[in-house]
Amino acid sequence: MPGQIREPGRTVTSRVLAVLDAFGPDDTGLSLAELCRRTGLAPSTAHRLAAELVEWGGLERGDDQRYRIGLRLFEIGMRAPGRRGLMEAARPFLEDLYEVTHENVHLAVRDGHHAIYLDKITGVRAVGAPARAGDRLPLHATGMGKALLAFARPELFAEIVREGLPRYTPHTLTSPELLRRALARTRERGFAVAAQEYSLGTVSVAAPVLSADRRHALAAISVVVHSSRANIDRLGPAVRTAAMGAARHFSRPAEDGPGTRGG
Amino acid sequence: MPGQIREPGRTVTSRVLAVLDAFGPDDTGLSLAELCRRTGLAPSTAHRLAAELVEWGGLERGDDQRYRIGLRLFEIGMRAPGRRGLMEAARPFLEDLYEVTHENVHLAVRDGHHAIYLDKITGVRAVGAPARAGDRLPLHATGMGKALLAFARPELFAEIVREGLPRYTPHTLTSPELLRRALARTRERGFAVAAQEYSLGTVSVAAPVLSADRRHALAAISVVVHSSRANIDRLGPAVRTAAMGAARHFSRPAEDGPGTRGG
Repeated sequence: MPGQIREPGRTVTSRVLAVLDAFGPDDTGLSLAELCRRTGLAPSTAHRLAAELVEWGGLERGDDQRYRIGLRLFEIGMRAPGRRGLMEAARPFLEDLYEVTHENVHLAVRDGHHAIYLDKITGVRAVGAPARAGDRLPLHATGMGKALLAFARPELFAEIVREGLPRYTPHTLTSPELLRRALARTRERGFAVAAQEYSLGTVSVAAPVLSADRRHALAAISVVVHSSRANIDRLGPAVRTAAMGAARHFSRPAEDGPGTRGG
Repeated sequence: MPGQIREPGRTVTSRVLAVLDAFGPDDTGLSLAELCRRTGLAPSTAHRLAAELVEWGGLERGDDQRYRIGLRLFEIGMRAPGRRGLMEAARPFLEDLYEVTHENVHLAVRDGHHAIYLDKITGVRAVGAPARAGDRLPLHATGMGKALLAFARPELFAEIVREGLPRYTPHTLTSPELLRRALARTRERGFAVAAQEYSLGTVSVAAPVLSADRRHALAAISVVVHSSRANIDRLGPAVRTAAMGAARHFSRPAEDGPGTRGG
């Protein structure tokens, strides 16, 4: 293990994981040189680890010699039960919400200090929305994030504030006091609104999928619309209804339909 | 690295990957003992590797001390570009197909000798369908698989036949000659049908999402219905239209809508 001798502070495992971490959300392929630069690994080490990952299927190497995340990692990632159970419970309600609004509909959970998208529904009639499943969002600047934060353990608010509240647009709530009030309002009416706080021109309305004791958000559902057609009075109750349906469905064990596994 | 001395034939990387491989599609959590049994690793090695994976976020360990696939792996898996680009191109057409049929709609790609589900749309009105994104399906026994196989390099057929054509129901095409004819018919009419060939009671109708030169399937789209309501004359053209729309959309670079990344 020559790499280990040269880099005594890093285990082999951590270097394998560093190779996977090197791929960002918008990367369509990394050359070996880019992989070395991002991981700090020596070319021989990076090449060997990448080759093992390619053989396993976690990475793919194209005709252009660039590495990409492979379908084996997609397959394993889909086995995250935090995702699967929620997504299966929520999907029918996301579909209904999409059919009613024909706007972009999202499902997210909280992962530490971020919201992470699990699912997204969009149609040919919805506005183009670059947000994708697997993307991470800040908690304080999105409807989704505020719905999750409003129904989380109370210390989380202080942690988020301590980390700082980055500004994304002139409308981002960067003051702890304003954010605190927005969260209280979210708890009051059962849904959160973020008006151009993360990106200009869009409004998101989000409701928490609550645990059976109604104290914690297991997930959140949001609709993202152009600010020109944001009708909060109409969207709020629709999103809330979808989130309540998903919560009820999630707490009940799924029924298996008669033999419809075929594709 | 005591594990390495005891198991000289396995690299550390292969053991990390064996830990990930241990999680099957239906596992909701593995104990350390189960992890050892499935990977063949010594408890100390399995525990150390799992702890590193937990710290990274690729595994999660619940209050019940069982390991689960974590959201970090979901996040990275979603970065597989083979999935993302196709899914984004296909999603609006899957939605339309769902709105027209209100049946289970799927998107899959071929990964070696299997079809792997990328996406699935289902609603409260569709029959329960245990098939999920990330699942693997045999090529010869599903509509999805036959659509992919009919538009693949010709040698693939021989490879699949050589591996054997397992029987799932009395209707599975286990004869190479019958399968060859079904694939010819699929190429002729532009869509494949599998009638109770993978599970009794369901029929799937699938069409390939073809490359620009129309010679290879990049993916396939299917609708799965109860055999009692399988109207092939109606479903075939609908699925084909959706697949053609996705193909056209995929070959065109995606437009970014005006600032709708917010959640």
